Amino acid sequence: MSTQLTPEILGALEQQAVEVPSWAYGNSGTRFKVFGTPGTPRDTFEKIADAAEVNRHTGLAPTVALHIPWDLVDDFSALRAHAEDLGVRLGTINSNTFQDDDYKFGALTHEDAAIRRKAIDHHLQCIDVMDETGSRDLKIWLAEGSNYPGQADMRGRQDRLQESLQEIYARLSADQRLVLEYKFFEPAFYHTDVPDWGTSYAQVVSLGDRAMVCLDTGHHAPGTNIEFIVMQLLRLGRLGSFDFNSRFYADDDLIVGAADPFQLFRILVEVVRGGGLNNPDVAFMLDQCHNVEEKIPGQIRSVLNVQEMTARALLLDREALAGAQRAGDVLGANAVMMDAFYTDVRPALAEWRESRGLPADPMAAYAASGYQQRINADRVGGDQAGWGA
Amino acid sequence: MSTQLTPEILGALEQQAVEVPSWAYGNSGTRFKVFGTPGTPRDTFEKIADAAEVNRHTGLAPTVALHIPWDLVDDFSALRAHAEDLGVRLGTINSNTFQDDDYKFGALTHEDAAIRRKAIDHHLQCIDVMDETGSRDLKIWLAEGSNYPGQADMRGRQDRLQESLQEIYARLSADQRLVLEYKFFEPAFYHTDVPDWGTSYAQVVSLGDRAMVCLDTGHHAPGTNIEFIVMQLLRLGRLGSFDFNSRFYADDDLIVGAADPFQLFRILVEVVRGGGLNNPDVAFMLDQCHNVEEKIPGQIRSVLNVQEMTARALLLDREALAGAQRAGDVLGANAVMMDAFYTDVRPALAEWRESRGLPADPMAAYAASGYQQRINADRVGGDQAGWGA
Amino acid sequence: MSTQLTPEILGALEQQAVEVPSWAYGNSGTRFKVFGTPGTPRDTFEKIADAAEVNRHTGLAPTVALHIPWDLVDDFSALRAHAEDLGVRLGTINSNTFQDDDYKFGALTHEDAAIRRKAIDHHLQCIDVMDETGSRDLKIWLAEGSNYPGQADMRGRQDRLQESLQEIYARLSADQRLVLEYKFFEPAFYHTDVPDWGTSYAQVVSLGDRAMVCLDTGHHAPGTNIEFIVMQLLRLGRLGSFDFNSRFYADDDLIVGAADPFQLFRILVEVVRGGGLNNPDVAFMLDQCHNVEEKIPGQIRSVLNVQEMTARALLLDREALAGAQRAGDVLGANAVMMDAFYTDVRPALAEWRESRGLPADPMAAYAASGYQQRINADRVGGDQAGWGA
Amino acid sequence: MSTQLTPEILGALEQQAVEVPSWAYGNSGTRFKVFGTPGTPRDTFEKIADAAEVNRHTGLAPTVALHIPWDLVDDFSALRAHAEDLGVRLGTINSNTFQDDDYKFGALTHEDAAIRRKAIDHHLQCIDVMDETGSRDLKIWLAEGSNYPGQADMRGRQDRLQESLQEIYARLSADQRLVLEYKFFEPAFYHTDVPDWGTSYAQVVSLGDRAMVCLDTGHHAPGTNIEFIVMQLLRLGRLGSFDFNSRFYADDDLIVGAADPFQLFRILVEVVRGGGLNNPDVAFMLDQCHNVEEKIPGQIRSVLNVQEMTARALLLDREALAGAQRAGDVLGANAVMMDAFYTDVRPALAEWRESRGLPADPMAAYAASGYQQRINADRVGGDQAGWGA
Repeated sequence: MSTQLTPEILGALEQQAVEVPSWAYGNSGTRFKVFGTPGTPRDTFEKIADAAEVNRHTGLAPTVALHIPWDLVDDFSALRAHAEDLGVRLGTINSNTFQDDDYKFGALTHEDAAIRRKAIDHHLQCIDVMDETGSRDLKIWLAEGSNYPGQADMRGRQDRLQESLQEIYARLSADQRLVLEYKFFEPAFYHTDVPDWGTSYAQVVSLGDRAMVCLDTGHHAPGTNIEFIVMQLLRLGRLGSFDFNSRFYADDDLIVGAADPFQLFRILVEVVRGGGLNNPDVAFMLDQCHNVEEKIPGQIRSVLNVQEMTARALLLDREALAGAQRAGDVLGANAVMMDAFYTDVRPALAEWRESRGLPADPMAAYAASGYQQRINADRVGGDQAGWGA
Repeated sequence: MSTQLTPEILGALEQQAVEVPSWAYGNSGTRFKVFGTPGTPRDTFEKIADAAEVNRHTGLAPTVALHIPWDLVDDFSALRAHAEDLGVRLGTINSNTFQDDDYKFGALTHEDAAIRRKAIDHHLQCIDVMDETGSRDLKIWLAEGSNYPGQADMRGRQDRLQESLQEIYARLSADQRLVLEYKFFEPAFYHTDVPDWGTSYAQVVSLGDRAMVCLDTGHHAPGTNIEFIVMQLLRLGRLGSFDFNSRFYADDDLIVGAADPFQLFRILVEVVRGGGLNNPDVAFMLDQCHNVEEKIPGQIRSVLNVQEMTARALLLDREALAGAQRAGDVLGANAVMMDAFYTDVRPALAEWRESRGLPADPMAAYAASGYQQRINADRVGGDQAGWGA
Repeated sequence: MSTQLTPEILGALEQQAVEVPSWAYGNSGTRFKVFGTPGTPRDTFEKIADAAEVNRHTGLAPTVALHIPWDLVDDFSALRAHAEDLGVRLGTINSNTFQDDDYKFGALTHEDAAIRRKAIDHHLQCIDVMDETGSRDLKIWLAEGSNYPGQADMRGRQDRLQESLQEIYARLSADQRLVLEYKFFEPAFYHTDVPDWGTSYAQVVSLGDRAMVCLDTGHHAPGTNIEFIVMQLLRLGRLGSFDFNSRFYADDDLIVGAADPFQLFRILVEVVRGGGLNNPDVAFMLDQCHNVEEKIPGQIRSVLNVQEMTARALLLDREALAGAQRAGDVLGANAVMMDAFYTDVRPALAEWRESRGLPADPMAAYAASGYQQRINADRVGGDQAGWGA
Repeated sequence: MSTQLTPEILGALEQQAVEVPSWAYGNSGTRFKVFGTPGTPRDTFEKIADAAEVNRHTGLAPTVALHIPWDLVDDFSALRAHAEDLGVRLGTINSNTFQDDDYKFGALTHEDAAIRRKAIDHHLQCIDVMDETGSRDLKIWLAEGSNYPGQADMRGRQDRLQESLQEIYARLSADQRLVLEYKFFEPAFYHTDVPDWGTSYAQVVSLGDRAMVCLDTGHHAPGTNIEFIVMQLLRLGRLGSFDFNSRFYADDDLIVGAADPFQLFRILVEVVRGGGLNNPDVAFMLDQCHNVEEKIPGQIRSVLNVQEMTARALLLDREALAGAQRAGDVLGANAVMMDAFYTDVRPALAEWRESRGLPADPMAAYAASGYQQRINADRVGGDQAGWGA
């Protein structure tokens, strides 16, 4: 029951990085209401500044994901320099095929070749941006689907999706990747074109080695054993990235670890088990929607949750676990798991943070920094959209 | 297996009425995108006109529910006269406690007495409107809840809810009712203050005889046997109204009967069994969200779905069913149910409609009427909000 | 809205066959209680006789699936002859790795090589039986998994599963197939080794061309769009068979089409769309659990449900559907679907049955046949187990 | 972040008691297989002895629930003396209306008055037993329901249930209670007669003040906010008892706290908030099914889980929480919750146990006690049934 974080564990934690999304700092909400908040960024440069605050207080968030077209700027080299000045880098590029009227009935899957063309071209533009920002990953979340049985030809759409992805994939350079996200439902309410990991897997395997699956922890049917999927995708060599968040019901996009901490622990145990920790092939990102809580502290809380839970996962006594498993000792094996989970790693992590020149309590440090007061005063009329895929 | 609709059945169908919501004709969508549509009403008068089209082609939708403040007009008697000119009446008044910034952390349940006061006053204003429109029912759907464990004191909120409702209830006149809707989740993602029928029931029973439960068919946990709740609320004398719609996943707000027609059948079978059909105590309404389909035809399709399924429910041979139930004949009893469900009532209903001076095919009749083309041309810049509770 | 079953449709229906399971005629139940029924078969020969009754009254069930070891007999050629005398054939062989004490912690996935050996050998024995019975398919449903986090090493089990399956697959002759079933949960309550179609697909693809996925309609998470999976597996060329049944909650194993007829319709629409109907690669089977209803009539009802729903799926006006889809006519496309679904095909099917020398009403014909009374009297002490995977 | 358990907290923990069920020590399993275990009790006296071991090592389980008829003995005063000799008392009496052939289609709800009579008489017999054992509570879990729409008249059954319960309730003495459990589904797969807390509440309110609701933590629809129901039933004064266990999917009956520890924490937080802790009106019990794990250690683990989580719930800084709630500080309020949850109370509890003459590590102490080895050797042929309601 020791809380001792060994040098090996601390070494692993030191390497850990969690990408934060630019859109986390904009306004977001539900279909019923988007509550505005003071200090909302007015442009992408300000979003990067907010993200840099998360990294400054935690040392955990060195890169920022961008969303195109929301984060289109005239001069990406200026944006890149701005980020680097603030100690962060530009990361994954996310495409958007759900906010144009043209995409009402699909984008990469649309019956109409002209609309598919437009959607493919949008992705090619995203790759142009990647070339400028130095980003490795193009992440595709498809909002496409249908609301009523019969509305769409699911099979034809699946075939067209593959064709569209092939054209996009062909445009990637050798050090770039395509990461395809799946989602159980929403905004489509009958069928979704990439609804499960199996579909994403089958689609990316047909593309090539640099096509991977993105696992968003909120995009599964009720009751799904998510750590099993983590295990399977790592085993199949296709786990490209995580979109972390948490949920009680549907895609609630709450702070990672908030709804079911033990599930996050189990996921990270499988990540470690399968060699996915600090593995460049497996990117850790947040994708959340801060509807009612403060946004920058929400992101700080989130990366800390990932860090704390990773520490617990690393504490797991794998030798004892394997022994109990081999012996068919159900309660013994479970006890080894629970011992790691229930260990309070927070004091040791606070000490370790201080030893690295970081605040022991990043939440308190941010609150004391005056940053929020400053942006509340300075940024008038900011309404940069965010959302919560 | 007869499709014969007896005079008794036709008599019941003739009395049937399904209230349509004013907000069905405005734009609605998801948190990701609201797709605009041509012909969107520019004011409440135009929404009433659209609703009247539904009734004109079906004879099924004689009343229109209003939403306050969306449908506030300077002169409700003018609105009332406008409606009556078009052959419909103003119906249920729906309150709104989810679109003001003040309500971020609650309305009738809020910790702050001033915000509760504001929310109560809003409902008193709604009752003022009811007095002017001649509406009987005040329907309250509470979007209130919390997103994170600890965020709110659920117990205190429950007590405050009761106090707030008592004050509202006290203002009703003797022929008016309060109808309290429950919803499993959304927009709150951890706890909802009225999440299930039990809570709504416990709350309204404490108010008095004219407080009832509203059952929205999309507001339940996965797998819930909704017809059981219909049965129970009828048994307890507290089923005040239905909000009809359908869903595959969460509160998808699809067209009633579209996702699971057999469920709609079972619900209507229990309505008939429990004396809820054409019973003034049990109001039938639609509450849907036409995100991708045409709105007026969507409403026509919906009221027809209710009518057709009611006809099937009335076809049920209750004597044969009771006999098989008494005999423990599982397959026999189920066969009696399925026989009614699988009977194609559509041709007989088409004939009967014609005999009453209504179009045999209301969908085709609306399409041929030229109304849609007219409003598409006339209404420029309409953006009356709708949504999908 | 015509109910006309064209010669083309009738031709397709004439070819249709639904395999019935030998275990449907034995006793089955829940963990709480297995209710015995009169007439329970005392051996495999009597199960075949019961299955033959289903075929005799419907012409739809020409083959019977066997379960090893439940259906082990000394002389399979005698069983084969017995079946053929009754007008049916022996079909799929189902293995059993869940009823031995050894398998408490796994079979094909077990940590202990000796237990894996035993489980593999059991499958080799099943293939021996297949050689004798002339069966094509070896169906593997794995009950394996764990109840507590930490109890099992999911990743190691997945690798061992692949090794075990490879050995089994290697033993198949060139005209035999391995069909791997997946199941969301139960009897394991934390992790299941083949929980979803993606896992089954990834496992069988690694085996070879004659390894396929079995889709049991009751083995999915709540809300899963099953017809999407049907579409996808057909597209990927790996849909080996259906286990038909229905459910409201978990793996309830109710009569196919009983819980959600419209879902069965949508599944069959995708089967037809994807070329899976009367395609020898895609076997139709029942796998149900008649806990409270009569067993032989339960099977008759089931194959009729599949037939009736197939007729409706064949009625679908695919040209009109495709036109509406291309036009983005959501309501129009859905109307084409619903028109086929709501068409009452039962009278036409009854006529057609009679024209082929079959009873118009197979349920009534069976009831009138005296068979049930005969077996109730003759079979004393029958307790052949059944269950409901 | 202190782990300091104050004297007040320890005082509360000292009073805590969790009733254990006699059937936890018998064999249990799924419909697919019941795995036997060595040491299975051969009669009720041996079950009591096993239960006493749980109490001896934990000081937490002073009473044992009995199940009639499984635990019927000729001389209950001898059983009572046996229990008291071992330091425990006989507790709640559980009735059984699901294992007789007569009850296939219902018991207290059956259409046939003779079968209702039998079921009522069984409950009257249970009350006779209560008089002999000195038990306060009669707990009724009804397995009743139906598998197919139409099979049963849900409304008639609800009325008959009320009549049956009234007769049973009338037989209780003034210090006895009736506790009615609800369950979402299983063993019935379409409708269940008491499926939700609302139904149980409505039924018991009609009986009288000594009729209460039993909340089994595994008996809800996916996603249900159970702590909300705890809050509501405490508010309404009708939370009679808990049946603790945990689940990932359906009524999995796993060890309490094993599947979602944070949920157990939230439940206990509401128990404390609502005055339910160490309140004689609110009985804490286990109802679990040890299918693959050792049974006595499984029970020890379970009561410890309840104790540890109660300690965390008592650590909650309610003043700080209320302050953050009033301030609308979402992240601050959540942080107060999480701080209590993440505090490692295990070392302090181990010390405290020792100070009271109990083993610091009850699991290890039991393993070292030799009891299991003794019963494995002594008890040959034990097959006392258990199950997992």
